[in-house]
Amino acid sequence: MDLSVDAAVEVLTRTPGTLKCMLSDLPAAWTSANEGPDTWSPQDVVGHLIHGEETDWIPRAKIILTKGESQAFEPFDRFAQARRFTGWSLERLLDRFGEARAEGIATLRGWHLTGEQLARCGRHPELGQVTLSQLLASWVVHDLGHIAQISRVMAKQYTAAVGPWKAYLPVLTR
Amino acid sequence: MDLSVDAAVEVLTRTPGTLKCMLSDLPAAWTSANEGPDTWSPQDVVGHLIHGEETDWIPRAKIILTKGESQAFEPFDRFAQARRFTGWSLERLLDRFGEARAEGIATLRGWHLTGEQLARCGRHPELGQVTLSQLLASWVVHDLGHIAQISRVMAKQYTAAVGPWKAYLPVLTR
Repeated sequence: MDLSVDAAVEVLTRTPGTLKCMLSDLPAAWTSANEGPDTWSPQDVVGHLIHGEETDWIPRAKIILTKGESQAFEPFDRFAQARRFTGWSLERLLDRFGEARAEGIATLRGWHLTGEQLARCGRHPELGQVTLSQLLASWVVHDLGHIAQISRVMAKQYTAAVGPWKAYLPVLTR
Repeated sequence: MDLSVDAAVEVLTRTPGTLKCMLSDLPAAWTSANEGPDTWSPQDVVGHLIHGEETDWIPRAKIILTKGESQAFEPFDRFAQARRFTGWSLERLLDRFGEARAEGIATLRGWHLTGEQLARCGRHPELGQVTLSQLLASWVVHDLGHIAQISRVMAKQYTAAVGPWKAYLPVLTR
């Protein structure tokens, strides 16, 4: 599929609700567990998604639209959530993600982007030249990748508990 | 984590709502797309999940509780949904999954399983001896694996659209 703003927004709008359905009021044994040292729990992932809303997707889109390739994006801090959200409950994180995402989508929709604007280039600090269209597609894929990650992290808590069924459950070995 | 029926039910109850949040009213370009020949779309996965409710998880649990290892489970038909649900809309599938799952959980809760019952063995046609506890843990992991799969299948529709960001989006190469 080529990127279409409408099709991207269809996915982007659903992510906060999907995460609420999956995680809200779930016992901490599920939401605070991770895949081992230096890996993320479902709660960590929600913090990371908020940080992306606040510092990555829409801010970078604005740089492309206003500065083009003349100003490289700020590097994204993939570990900022540990400091930024110390002491936040999962419910507060889920609510904040919903708010931040709604703001981001309202901004995106308000731009009424043309094909010419979607093809405009920006400069990624490591990847080099990227287009606004590629940025928006990556926003969608990033959401879906983290939903898959949350599912996988939760599933792995039962790796031993499934016994011989492990052979039929590929999510446990990804 | 060891299997606890309460912790398992916390996840099992959420899956139909999670899938509705992700998929309901989403354009078919997202819900009917797959990963290539002989792979499943999100819609196919929902059919597979219904078929599991109808023929796999609770029916097998009943066999363990009533027959133990004396009667092997029926082999599970992983491709039955293509015939069983021909012509069904995604909305109808999502609703049927919600109904079937609610019935299954009500049955499971009604059993008030003891530790002794959870340790009882059944006979899987390929895996051999398995316990009721392992079956219930596998039910949970199976749900989570398919949520991850749906996310991955959707993400892959934008593999080309993300351009150089593919290097940072591991869900696209799983």
